[in-house]
Amino acid sequence: MDFKFFQIVAIIVSLLAFGEAFWLYKWVKALPSSNPQVAAIGLLIKNGANTFLKKEYIAMARFCGIAAIIILILLPSPIWVGNPLDNVIMMFAYLFGTVFSAIAGKIGIGIATIANVKAAEASTDGLKPSFMAGFRGGAVMGMAVVGSSLLGVTLILLLTNSTTALLGFSFGASSLALFAKAGGGIFTKTADISADLVGKVELGIPEDDPRNPAVIADNVGDNVGDVAGMGADLFDSNVASLAAAFVMAVTLDKVAGGNVNAGMVLCYATLGLLASIIGVATARMGKNGSPTRALNSSTYITTIVFALITAIATYVFHFEWRIWLASAIGLGVGVVIGIASDYFTDDNKKPVHEVAKASESGPAFTILAGVSYGFMSALPSMVGIGISAVAAYKICEPLGEGYAMFGISMAAVGMLSIVGMIISNDAYGPIVDNARGLVEMGDLGDKALEITDSLDSAGNTVKAITKGFAIGAAGLTVIALLGAFISEVNVKAIELGLETITGFNIMDPLVFFGLLVGATIPAVFSAMLMLGVDRNAQRLVAEIHRQFREIAGLKEGKKGVVPEYDKCIEIATTGALKELVPAGLFAIIATLVVGFVGGVQAIGGFLTGNIVSGLLLALFMSNAGGLWDNTKKYIEAGHNGGKGSDTHKAAVVGDTVGDPFKDTAGPSINTQITVVSLVASLMATLFLTMSIF
Amino acid sequence: MDFKFFQIVAIIVSLLAFGEAFWLYKWVKALPSSNPQVAAIGLLIKNGANTFLKKEYIAMARFCGIAAIIILILLPSPIWVGNPLDNVIMMFAYLFGTVFSAIAGKIGIGIATIANVKAAEASTDGLKPSFMAGFRGGAVMGMAVVGSSLLGVTLILLLTNSTTALLGFSFGASSLALFAKAGGGIFTKTADISADLVGKVELGIPEDDPRNPAVIADNVGDNVGDVAGMGADLFDSNVASLAAAFVMAVTLDKVAGGNVNAGMVLCYATLGLLASIIGVATARMGKNGSPTRALNSSTYITTIVFALITAIATYVFHFEWRIWLASAIGLGVGVVIGIASDYFTDDNKKPVHEVAKASESGPAFTILAGVSYGFMSALPSMVGIGISAVAAYKICEPLGEGYAMFGISMAAVGMLSIVGMIISNDAYGPIVDNARGLVEMGDLGDKALEITDSLDSAGNTVKAITKGFAIGAAGLTVIALLGAFISEVNVKAIELGLETITGFNIMDPLVFFGLLVGATIPAVFSAMLMLGVDRNAQRLVAEIHRQFREIAGLKEGKKGVVPEYDKCIEIATTGALKELVPAGLFAIIATLVVGFVGGVQAIGGFLTGNIVSGLLLALFMSNAGGLWDNTKKYIEAGHNGGKGSDTHKAAVVGDTVGDPFKDTAGPSINTQITVVSLVASLMATLFLTMSIF
Repeated sequence: MDFKFFQIVAIIVSLLAFGEAFWLYKWVKALPSSNPQVAAIGLLIKNGANTFLKKEYIAMARFCGIAAIIILILLPSPIWVGNPLDNVIMMFAYLFGTVFSAIAGKIGIGIATIANVKAAEASTDGLKPSFMAGFRGGAVMGMAVVGSSLLGVTLILLLTNSTTALLGFSFGASSLALFAKAGGGIFTKTADISADLVGKVELGIPEDDPRNPAVIADNVGDNVGDVAGMGADLFDSNVASLAAAFVMAVTLDKVAGGNVNAGMVLCYATLGLLASIIGVATARMGKNGSPTRALNSSTYITTIVFALITAIATYVFHFEWRIWLASAIGLGVGVVIGIASDYFTDDNKKPVHEVAKASESGPAFTILAGVSYGFMSALPSMVGIGISAVAAYKICEPLGEGYAMFGISMAAVGMLSIVGMIISNDAYGPIVDNARGLVEMGDLGDKALEITDSLDSAGNTVKAITKGFAIGAAGLTVIALLGAFISEVNVKAIELGLETITGFNIMDPLVFFGLLVGATIPAVFSAMLMLGVDRNAQRLVAEIHRQFREIAGLKEGKKGVVPEYDKCIEIATTGALKELVPAGLFAIIATLVVGFVGGVQAIGGFLTGNIVSGLLLALFMSNAGGLWDNTKKYIEAGHNGGKGSDTHKAAVVGDTVGDPFKDTAGPSINTQITVVSLVASLMATLFLTMSIF
Repeated sequence: MDFKFFQIVAIIVSLLAFGEAFWLYKWVKALPSSNPQVAAIGLLIKNGANTFLKKEYIAMARFCGIAAIIILILLPSPIWVGNPLDNVIMMFAYLFGTVFSAIAGKIGIGIATIANVKAAEASTDGLKPSFMAGFRGGAVMGMAVVGSSLLGVTLILLLTNSTTALLGFSFGASSLALFAKAGGGIFTKTADISADLVGKVELGIPEDDPRNPAVIADNVGDNVGDVAGMGADLFDSNVASLAAAFVMAVTLDKVAGGNVNAGMVLCYATLGLLASIIGVATARMGKNGSPTRALNSSTYITTIVFALITAIATYVFHFEWRIWLASAIGLGVGVVIGIASDYFTDDNKKPVHEVAKASESGPAFTILAGVSYGFMSALPSMVGIGISAVAAYKICEPLGEGYAMFGISMAAVGMLSIVGMIISNDAYGPIVDNARGLVEMGDLGDKALEITDSLDSAGNTVKAITKGFAIGAAGLTVIALLGAFISEVNVKAIELGLETITGFNIMDPLVFFGLLVGATIPAVFSAMLMLGVDRNAQRLVAEIHRQFREIAGLKEGKKGVVPEYDKCIEIATTGALKELVPAGLFAIIATLVVGFVGGVQAIGGFLTGNIVSGLLLALFMSNAGGLWDNTKKYIEAGHNGGKGSDTHKAAVVGDTVGDPFKDTAGPSINTQITVVSLVASLMATLFLTMSIF
């Protein structure tokens, strides 16, 4: 079948996704809301989130503007060397990448700050309506992200017919993800920690007490960190996996003639979106009324639908069955990684119980046990990623030269095929978390609080699975990007009459040097983000203290006295963006230094070290953080001494450490890895020709 | 010059080292001691340490006995394939490796448990005599370790003339180090944490109060963890670096004829020992009376002496100057790594001050800030190791094929050349730490306490440097072992008519699979050790509670009532050995599984991943631990609220987390890396011929 056909279908399915998103949006918006207090607080959250988004996008526009100029001058080759038109295309592709992702983020925030209010009010009617409000709100985000990423990729290919431009588009998405994920991650934990520190610890007022000046910022944080941030992160991974697959597919198609491989990539990506559309449309809460099961079952339905319809497509369009198998394995391993992550954070399993028991000896033991289980939790996922890479490679190797790496990239595409569903489930979390806050602040009663509590708890459980999934997908994607990097280098090498490379030999000291340095980057990057949270929280705590001191009647809860919520949001926003930039620049500059000093071989090692240690640390931090969070909740449910006991206090320390682990540093490492991989791929030809060694 | 000549000189210098050790031993033993209480407690510590050592050596004898039988059957090639005599030699070489290291450990414990008493009593005479007792006690250990490692290596080469047997010897040393370092590490932190938890936290009695049943175990722990454990670790690294260098030197000499390269390795190792002998002999405390400066200046003297006399030897014996330069670079980088580690743990520098400030917000911030700086601290060392590897490689590459990797191994030999001095300084630490405890328990007065406090603090500062040094040396050594692994594989490959390998291509999915799995091993290994400490501490805490409950008058400090110290020692010992075995087996079995499944290529990736993430985690854990320790001390010295404040309590949590980080898991990773590398090298030919892929 012609490539054009798949392009048209992809555009249609993307529009279908937008259609479903629009329908769901209307559905959510039409839900009744009548409580003026909930509406007022909801509005504060909405405005706060938009304040953050606006500032973030302005900061990003500056950053991306500079990056765009550098791209215009240097990429795909220096403007004085190649065709200047290519540079203009590249620059626009990059800017499109940022804009598409930004729009998806904006849509996500828009719906999330409506759905939270609706879910809060629906909770007075029962579990089911409240769940549906949360889920369908999240699904708007899921459909918007995946629809716009598929649409963007397809349009770029249609307009430029260049995979290098596609890498540029992907880099744009990554740049935005870096801001959205790391910036949002710093913001959300700044607000969360500061609100808790002054509110719960110093003054002993409840979690979502409206007297707390940082309480709105805290709720805004859930939206900007988990909705916009996670969305941008998965937009980024999704686009990067497609870009890597296309780069290799096009190279293979050049040799084989035709464009069957490129067609296959686009076909699978389209069917993945279609499966998600079906999964979202069919999601219902069963009779047992378990929100966790409802979320998980819709994921499993999507998985099965995807496997089935890609098998049919493979049969109809005469694609290679081996490649189908590779992508199915990718998807299967994604599910396995999710389950493994779940084990280490589930409060019915041993790790949570052991950490709770260790907490009886004090906070130091909470930390030690959590760090230990966090380290262990990396093993199944790392082995799983390794096995899926080997399997995909070996299965596709017989198809001919270059197909083995293409197989790995298709495993990544397979793993990410259900990303629409994953984002839906993930965005559900902050919506119902917000709803819980609104129920408390709006005094909607104990039953509503109980219902939103159970929805929130399901969100946390599912979050562990989706985070594991996101890390696994990023892992396979960046392995595929390594293949794309080599493709890019070799195209240029042939052009220049240089020797092509077949890989990176570890015994080459430049490769080893790259490995050592690359492995250290994620550690330093996450350290910079965590210290950023710390510094930013100090600023915000000072502001909260100031408000309690200067605003008369605030502490006493005098009627009509409200804190200056927006001051807190502004401080957290400004600080987050300020703290994020050095970390992002550090990763990018380290890549450039290693590349221009050590050349292509050093970069190969650098990317590998970065991927390997990045995955390890991301899994460690995400899972340890989730484990501490759930341990605290487990103790609060009455175990090991229950709420208020010394054990609980120890668990709170663990939870506070875990917050930036799991919501700032851990998931930002994903983005860091992708950014660095794309910078390397884009600069490949420059590293080849201009390095010292 | 003939190789025999260097062998004879090496033996003479080894004996000289033993001579110096004996003289220092006599000198320390002749110091006056008169206080019966100090003598009695000193005897308890001595007996406790010997109890641990005896149990450890029995457990080890069982483990090594089984290992020896496996070696007899399988190595260097299955007994039914090759010459059975080779297998017998291999087995004995292995056993010699364990025995030599065990003897050095025994000597170290012997002198440390004398010198602690002498240093304690000398402290009543002033700083200088007390310092000299501590330093010279440590130097006995230093000389014994390096003397016996050089003697062992020389004898093995003299008797067997086989570098494979040398790898067996090295593996024996590694096996022992695994027990000594990891087992000792679990013991020491079990005792330390339990004693603090019940004594300081629950009962509020001082650190070294003789009523505490675990107080002797705590002091024993310093000896078995830091003296015997660190000694075995550096014995192991030293032997491994020499083994790697010899494996490559002999291969090069086969091609070139003669044995100039092997001679050079032995000559440099001998001169390193000679430099340490001189460094120890000339160590004095200057007029300013700073113990830190005295320790550091003797290290610098040794460094300079080594660089000078190896230059002379290179000139006289017509060695290659390029190789001299490689080893000098290794040594220089070792010093740089030490200084970098010092920066992150020094209480005059920013990281300690920032962590102290963060502690004002509570323990969670102590942890977050410490983890962040710990992550950052890895950067200079990782870059330093990478640069020294590249430099050594590039400098030696022009000498011909194979010289580049040999250059890296000589950088490792260079870095480890001053290891005698490093061990001396390191063993000084626990001796004066013990002395401080004896001063307190023996009521020797406030002035003596102040003096031993300042000696102890110098020990902690120097320890950070020596730990960084040990990790750096292990890093270069295992890179060299990777070269040795390839040498071993290729010797066999040529024999079997198979293709030789030139390295490991990262784009080979088996290599990548190995990388992912190998990188996870140090994380899981350290998690197992830390959980082991936790479990073991729970057992010991229960025992301490039992004694306080059942022994009448103990809590009240009734005269004549003593706790059952030896029960505590026994529980800590048995538990430590029990907890250690699964972690050690896990690392070894993972290596075998990856090797027999994925073959030589997967093992290449596995070792690389193991080295890279192992170094990263070891640096992170050691430095974060040291940072927390010194932050606590910094606050105790009156900063940020001082002793007893909430800030101090937060810092104590950090210190407790840091204890197993820096004294159990972090430094054990070194040993784990070496063990895994040696298992791989020894099994190289089996992986080559018997793997699935």
